Amino acid sequence: MRPFDVLIASHGSVAASLVEAAGMICGDASLQGVSAVGLEPDDSPESYLERLRARVDGSRPTLILTDLYGGTPHNVACTLARRDGGEVRCISGANLAIVIEAITTTDPLDDALVERLIQTTREAVVDATDRLATQH
Amino acid sequence: MRPFDVLIASHGSVAASLVEAAGMICGDASLQGVSAVGLEPDDSPESYLERLRARVDGSRPTLILTDLYGGTPHNVACTLARRDGGEVRCISGANLAIVIEAITTTDPLDDALVERLIQTTREAVVDATDRLATQH
Repeated sequence: MRPFDVLIASHGSVAASLVEAAGMICGDASLQGVSAVGLEPDDSPESYLERLRARVDGSRPTLILTDLYGGTPHNVACTLARRDGGEVRCISGANLAIVIEAITTTDPLDDALVERLIQTTREAVVDATDRLATQH
Repeated sequence: MRPFDVLIASHGSVAASLVEAAGMICGDASLQGVSAVGLEPDDSPESYLERLRARVDGSRPTLILTDLYGGTPHNVACTLARRDGGEVRCISGANLAIVIEAITTTDPLDDALVERLIQTTREAVVDATDRLATQH
């Protein structure tokens, strides 16, 4: 069992769709302790912060994955991480690969895991046309 | 004006939500020549290939961004790229950063652009907690 929660913060429905897609691939059991909060057009940073905070269980570490460095969901998540301290970690630039890797791990949420997740995500960004050319 | 089309291929609604979020940030005008095709539970690889192909305008180069290397949307997109040759490029591991970068460029779809998009995407994956620590 993953010893931390995963919260995905995004513009609109990106977060919810990533959770849905991860469930399609990994099964719904993997979604325990996983939630998604999308920024809606009528949200203020304050209302969004409250909605994010409502999904953080203070008794468990939380990994927040955000869709875009510098975007409102990311900035608000950073505010939350700053206030709540070391039990909340925040990685920007989420794609489906990092969501799958994060929700299926059983490792603790520490520096080593964060670094591994970032490396995995970066390595998932591939020029597949180039790989096709070498295969044929 | 971007001299190529952008097609996002994903599990479920990831592709559509990325397009929607990019429109929130960049404006709807940036979405011209941008489309999303999500793999649904009742899709076969063949039916999905046909839906992808229907979105490719043979008279324009197309950049396909897929959600996950090795997933069905990615594999089917590669099949399409292989059959249609050099006018279709395919990058896996899409996040919101690459979608925004791809739809707002005016550069031609060549090796230099593909490399730049991949670098931009990888650099968008950041341990924001670490940056917070250095700011405070």
